[in-house]
Amino acid sequence: MDIGFIGLGEMGAAIVGNLLEAGHTVRVWNRTAAKAQALARQGARVVATPAEAFSGDAAISMLADDAALREVIDAALLERAPRGLVHVNMATISVALAQTLAQEHAAHGIQYVAAPVLGRPDAAQAAKLTIMAAGASEAIDRVQPLFDVIGQKTWRVGAEPQHANVMKLAANFMLASAVESLGEAAALLGGYGVAMRDFLDVVTGGPFPGPVYAGYGGMIAEGRYEPALFKARLGLKDVRLALAAADAVSTPLPVASVLRDSLLEAVANGDGERDFAVLGKVAARRAGRQG
Amino acid sequence: MDIGFIGLGEMGAAIVGNLLEAGHTVRVWNRTAAKAQALARQGARVVATPAEAFSGDAAISMLADDAALREVIDAALLERAPRGLVHVNMATISVALAQTLAQEHAAHGIQYVAAPVLGRPDAAQAAKLTIMAAGASEAIDRVQPLFDVIGQKTWRVGAEPQHANVMKLAANFMLASAVESLGEAAALLGGYGVAMRDFLDVVTGGPFPGPVYAGYGGMIAEGRYEPALFKARLGLKDVRLALAAADAVSTPLPVASVLRDSLLEAVANGDGERDFAVLGKVAARRAGRQG
Amino acid sequence: MDIGFIGLGEMGAAIVGNLLEAGHTVRVWNRTAAKAQALARQGARVVATPAEAFSGDAAISMLADDAALREVIDAALLERAPRGLVHVNMATISVALAQTLAQEHAAHGIQYVAAPVLGRPDAAQAAKLTIMAAGASEAIDRVQPLFDVIGQKTWRVGAEPQHANVMKLAANFMLASAVESLGEAAALLGGYGVAMRDFLDVVTGGPFPGPVYAGYGGMIAEGRYEPALFKARLGLKDVRLALAAADAVSTPLPVASVLRDSLLEAVANGDGERDFAVLGKVAARRAGRQG
Amino acid sequence: MDIGFIGLGEMGAAIVGNLLEAGHTVRVWNRTAAKAQALARQGARVVATPAEAFSGDAAISMLADDAALREVIDAALLERAPRGLVHVNMATISVALAQTLAQEHAAHGIQYVAAPVLGRPDAAQAAKLTIMAAGASEAIDRVQPLFDVIGQKTWRVGAEPQHANVMKLAANFMLASAVESLGEAAALLGGYGVAMRDFLDVVTGGPFPGPVYAGYGGMIAEGRYEPALFKARLGLKDVRLALAAADAVSTPLPVASVLRDSLLEAVANGDGERDFAVLGKVAARRAGRQG
Repeated sequence: MDIGFIGLGEMGAAIVGNLLEAGHTVRVWNRTAAKAQALARQGARVVATPAEAFSGDAAISMLADDAALREVIDAALLERAPRGLVHVNMATISVALAQTLAQEHAAHGIQYVAAPVLGRPDAAQAAKLTIMAAGASEAIDRVQPLFDVIGQKTWRVGAEPQHANVMKLAANFMLASAVESLGEAAALLGGYGVAMRDFLDVVTGGPFPGPVYAGYGGMIAEGRYEPALFKARLGLKDVRLALAAADAVSTPLPVASVLRDSLLEAVANGDGERDFAVLGKVAARRAGRQG
Repeated sequence: MDIGFIGLGEMGAAIVGNLLEAGHTVRVWNRTAAKAQALARQGARVVATPAEAFSGDAAISMLADDAALREVIDAALLERAPRGLVHVNMATISVALAQTLAQEHAAHGIQYVAAPVLGRPDAAQAAKLTIMAAGASEAIDRVQPLFDVIGQKTWRVGAEPQHANVMKLAANFMLASAVESLGEAAALLGGYGVAMRDFLDVVTGGPFPGPVYAGYGGMIAEGRYEPALFKARLGLKDVRLALAAADAVSTPLPVASVLRDSLLEAVANGDGERDFAVLGKVAARRAGRQG
Repeated sequence: MDIGFIGLGEMGAAIVGNLLEAGHTVRVWNRTAAKAQALARQGARVVATPAEAFSGDAAISMLADDAALREVIDAALLERAPRGLVHVNMATISVALAQTLAQEHAAHGIQYVAAPVLGRPDAAQAAKLTIMAAGASEAIDRVQPLFDVIGQKTWRVGAEPQHANVMKLAANFMLASAVESLGEAAALLGGYGVAMRDFLDVVTGGPFPGPVYAGYGGMIAEGRYEPALFKARLGLKDVRLALAAADAVSTPLPVASVLRDSLLEAVANGDGERDFAVLGKVAARRAGRQG
Repeated sequence: MDIGFIGLGEMGAAIVGNLLEAGHTVRVWNRTAAKAQALARQGARVVATPAEAFSGDAAISMLADDAALREVIDAALLERAPRGLVHVNMATISVALAQTLAQEHAAHGIQYVAAPVLGRPDAAQAAKLTIMAAGASEAIDRVQPLFDVIGQKTWRVGAEPQHANVMKLAANFMLASAVESLGEAAALLGGYGVAMRDFLDVVTGGPFPGPVYAGYGGMIAEGRYEPALFKARLGLKDVRLALAAADAVSTPLPVASVLRDSLLEAVANGDGERDFAVLGKVAARRAGRQG
């Protein structure tokens, strides 16, 4: 397929790599051009404007946040885009913007699929992302071959694009909640001199299998928060989005409020660029200990 | 082996059943005798006093809470117990009482093993409990054959009995945290008309495998909180114990504070006897919806 | 003085009344013209555009929120405004917008004074507002005669306009915190059948004198949340602004997080238009009782 | 009157001083006798056992906590006490113990008045305590002359002694809530470089008059937490009692949960013996700043 790709951060670059490897034509655009050059060596065609990327069979966007997306995806871009284009937005954005984008695309006759992903850059590299796709069935059908190349599983979660965004935010909220609870559990254990590593063996071998508890728990057990696979600062961004989405439908999320405060504390104390697992350090500091 | 067993609630009765089936001799005692009679039909010998159960090779206790335990396990009982006896306490008790018991047993020359378990009555029935055992190695060695009959895995977590209790409380705190986060996620999704069931498929198929998320999440998705496999009231009891243990070592656990408040709200609104998953209903009510 | 006034809600209308009574010339503008007509009968001159109000010696704005303000106060308006004009913004707005406004006014050579107030419409009516004014001294000097007419006390809180807005948000956060604590105290007392009224007599007669505890406490004691002197929905708006301001400087405010959740719960359960004191009802509901 | 007094901490000693000055006969007992000797110089008669103090017209107890009280006030003491004695318990104790004491005194035919106080040692010294008295009217009537000597105001809050204790805990909860909100407000202001002192002038001059906001706020503004007029450790004790009282009637108190966590953090970080206002330091630390 002939694909445009906008946004070449760690996630975007890894996804483009897999698309190229699968034989697709990919026109790439990034605000800072250097990142695009690296992909050019893998066969990507670097274009000079978002509009050039917003053409062909499909355009995929993977921008950092609402503001970055709004700088690029605007009425002018949609106006110029070819009618048959399917725009797949894979970024984690606010539900409010997701709703706006759905309306704007509809008004311009552009197919719009929200397809946020679960998985960090390492999973993107390995083509093991989990994709939550929402939008018109026929539009998803058309880009499914792309999803098959970049993810291990695509979940179709309905016709309303923003539903996929709500799911993404809820999933990241659950992730953050698990990490915070690991951090608090470690603080409790630490108060009695019980080894977090032993505890982790028990719970990951029993009620809490899977990579989340083992991975973040392991970092907390070791007090090692670098290299950051998922930065605390970005975790905070997502918790804020979950809270904003919940606020818009008058839904209190008390655990999310705690998460926000803990992550703010991490950032305030200089750990925003460390891994999300640094919540374990926050919990330990509250107890007057090192974490 | 010749075993005494004290406390025949759902968990205790299931464990005794497995011990009998494996050919052990089990003398059983319960405050209300009726429960013991049922086990007599399976071969248990009903005794009239705790002291009669507190003899033989090992005595196992599985009482409801600190108060129930203190009514039965006192200085007089320990004084009369045979020196070689190993007392295995499987109940979830406070860390404070665990520390006291360790001292008292040592003072009376009775071997003491703390062996709290992960798993609900259905897991006990199926001999699939996870056992966290702490105490003197030789004492655990002696009762390991019993653990092999009633659990699927025994984790040895050190020589200090109370360490096993701290782990148990930390594990149940993590469980409660997962259930609350499922409930809040469901409330968020509900605000946008996204199906919890669909969300659950995504997260249990990806970051959150295992029985906890699937099981409690499924109950929340269905809004079905009965039959109660683990009652909200008992979940509250365990969160209280985790908070008390953390308080004793000056460790704030902000998520545990939220859990306590949510579980109190469940109890206050008449759902204490429903399943722990009723936290989903609490989260929905806060948002003005049914859960 | 010759004053323009933009925004004729309850607060604005009351302030204009006092300005007129003191003999000032007031040109008024409101998005919905009906409210202006009522003031015309008191002597106000109704103008058709914000620009007509944004002239003379001073222009005062008292709009509902950031969005309402941004619809009216824009570059075009500032461009056309007479150089000597002092713009006094009395509304409770975000700190972020306050900072932007300060810069924009400076760029256009318009004097800008932030002057948010403490006090509800009844205090505005009685000219008993407390005014927190920040901006250039000479600008405040020029409008001080107006402040003297509409308030009982002006606090000058520095040269940076946004400092006054931060103070306003901090003050309203403290107010909300006091109301929530009254609500929770009432729930605790209610659990034991102790009369909130008796408790209130004790604390307002001792550690907590002043109108806040007596006023909101009295509404909670009576379970009477109407008429709403300060609506829960507006209280929520201000708590959100405090949280956003704190977030921007990486400052966790755990009590504010609780307040937000409680107010969201009030709104979700249909009490957004009731008085802020309805936090007492939220606290009672959580305990399974009526409040 | 002929009075026995048990418990000579800072509060007790100050109260005894005022009773002596008013001409009453006071037999004093304290666990550590040294404190009693100091009062002997003011005219108190030092007795060797609690029983000797538990006689005469009235016995007043002012012990540190539930445990200290239970060591002294037991069945044997009540059995030996003269029938006409009125026991006035001024300590802040748990509601659970308050209920037990009421029953035990009734069973032994001893009049029991719960009379917890508002006010710190300096207020006790100045005979400016606020007294909340509950119990049989005639019993209170008999000790009212004593209350008049040691306090500035006695509130009669019903016939059930524990109601006074619930009120005391609710009042201290409100106090803690006010201090925490001052601390968080200071952290917010600090993030923008706004002076807490200026803010305090505004709010204490307006919505929040009285000694609580001015006093604790002033300490926070100065970052001065010594000398401790009311220690953080004791504040934590009272918050725990409020939470326990609320738990017993299934009442969530989310702000109290935050207070507990903040005070635990203070204690964990070595500030338990500093003034309660040290909550301001906790809030600042969370924001990565000094407080």
